[in-house]
Amino acid sequence: MTERLLTFPTLNQTQITALTSLGVDVVPASDWETATDIDIIFGWGQHGPAVLQNPQNHVRWIQTVSAGVDYLPLDWINAHNIQVTNASGAYSAAIAESTIGYLLYFLRDFNDAVKNQAGHFWQVPARSDLATLANQKIVIYGTGSIGQHIAELLNGFGNYPFGVNRSGHGVTGFQGTVSLEDDAALVKDADVIINAMPATPATVHYFNTDYFEKLNGVRIFVNVGRGKSVDEQALMHALLYQNVLNAALDVFETEPLPRESKLWDYPNVLITPHQTGFDVDNIRPIFGYLSDNLKSWDADGQLTVNRVDVSRGY
Amino acid sequence: MTERLLTFPTLNQTQITALTSLGVDVVPASDWETATDIDIIFGWGQHGPAVLQNPQNHVRWIQTVSAGVDYLPLDWINAHNIQVTNASGAYSAAIAESTIGYLLYFLRDFNDAVKNQAGHFWQVPARSDLATLANQKIVIYGTGSIGQHIAELLNGFGNYPFGVNRSGHGVTGFQGTVSLEDDAALVKDADVIINAMPATPATVHYFNTDYFEKLNGVRIFVNVGRGKSVDEQALMHALLYQNVLNAALDVFETEPLPRESKLWDYPNVLITPHQTGFDVDNIRPIFGYLSDNLKSWDADGQLTVNRVDVSRGY
Repeated sequence: MTERLLTFPTLNQTQITALTSLGVDVVPASDWETATDIDIIFGWGQHGPAVLQNPQNHVRWIQTVSAGVDYLPLDWINAHNIQVTNASGAYSAAIAESTIGYLLYFLRDFNDAVKNQAGHFWQVPARSDLATLANQKIVIYGTGSIGQHIAELLNGFGNYPFGVNRSGHGVTGFQGTVSLEDDAALVKDADVIINAMPATPATVHYFNTDYFEKLNGVRIFVNVGRGKSVDEQALMHALLYQNVLNAALDVFETEPLPRESKLWDYPNVLITPHQTGFDVDNIRPIFGYLSDNLKSWDADGQLTVNRVDVSRGY
Repeated sequence: MTERLLTFPTLNQTQITALTSLGVDVVPASDWETATDIDIIFGWGQHGPAVLQNPQNHVRWIQTVSAGVDYLPLDWINAHNIQVTNASGAYSAAIAESTIGYLLYFLRDFNDAVKNQAGHFWQVPARSDLATLANQKIVIYGTGSIGQHIAELLNGFGNYPFGVNRSGHGVTGFQGTVSLEDDAALVKDADVIINAMPATPATVHYFNTDYFEKLNGVRIFVNVGRGKSVDEQALMHALLYQNVLNAALDVFETEPLPRESKLWDYPNVLITPHQTGFDVDNIRPIFGYLSDNLKSWDADGQLTVNRVDVSRGY
């Protein structure tokens, strides 16, 4: 059976040949306006909604190249029984490495060093200004693929983090987990808080004024989840009033982060432009998910890898 | 038997009491000029040579608070049969964490991010600009306590580094080791080179023009060993001609690094002010070495922890 797949990422010839051998007719995204009979969308882009809603197409499956799928028209997709598989896991290793990098950037006092370097200042910090990862109390929100990868790397530093998830179920690599409702006691004396949750209605502005007021000088707050989970005004307030001492942020309420955002100028904030999952080899695992799903899809109409519960949003 | 110990670090009352209970009379460094009959020196400072050479003293042992001992008057110490024990191992965990931080700073493209942040630039890098530690070919010079700690942390990232040491003997955590004489083939296609060697006559300017010319675009060069091991002029040349693409340096030929050094302004160099081993808990393991050595010294005149071969210099 021949399926027509519209691909937003540019595929190389080896990848196109591989898809063709699986019985797939590959349509580049540049042909979106004239293409018809599209069954599958790979990736997403500006013209995704038009492709999806074109009555000449009959899209039944979207394989994203992202882990989060909150940018898709999920209500429409749900109403039309379109299946979605995501790229969960493809970025986890890179995101976890970036996260360890963020923590060491502040714990090993690189943040002061880069500022002093700009002024040619040899300013030796106090020994007590530096700390090791091994000795931090770390709480990770989200114990899925990303959270688990972060925990695994932390374990290599002799650190066993705590996890927070919906139900509080235990997860390998964590010394303990609690549910979102029961996190107050856990975070009160945390040294490090990491958000790695997906964006869902339940997590929008989870990190708000009420949340930050529970904290007593958390050394580092990291957001590698979704920008919408953090109320940026509340975070800036927490940074000023030292409920939070430093923050590393890769995602924002509005992206690109507007030039006029005050966050840029906070001396104790590290801003990276939603790059934390980037890796020279990113496409390799994602193409693997697509191929594996294509095989089962052709065999029995099932998608076996990374199925999204569209009604839940992840 | 009462020993008189002159201490350069300021000890707290608990530590002084602990030493007193071991039969030690503690003399603070501020009393260096009037003190006599000093047997043991703990740490080192400006007036160390005067204390050592005062004929009213009879120093037989120096317990340093540093891993390297190249700043001591080793010839004089050797000629007078004074024993030296160092703080090897006390800083290794912190140095290893800093080293991982340096690597992630460049691999995860924080170096561009901090510069872009200063200008409020949301500049998304290419996916191919970022890489993961897991996929780097890493060569560590020095396979002692520091090198082994770095290797151990790298193992947690799924990376098994290569080691270079004097004899080429194998070491746990490394996928292979070669001797200093046989490193050319190993470093030719290395992604990362880390210096963690002590300063000895054999390692002075080991990383010189001849060395850097062997490299084909090493992604990151790290120096957490000693400043004298690197010819800084040669390194700057290598950075300009892209034998080395980025460098993280914690130690320098002259410290503090002079304000007029051109190194400060290299956009692909991260400079930290000899802080890589700092930790809020630094004194704890070193005080442990001192106590353990005091016990054996009193029992049978032996020093069991971290004895330095004074003639070799480490």
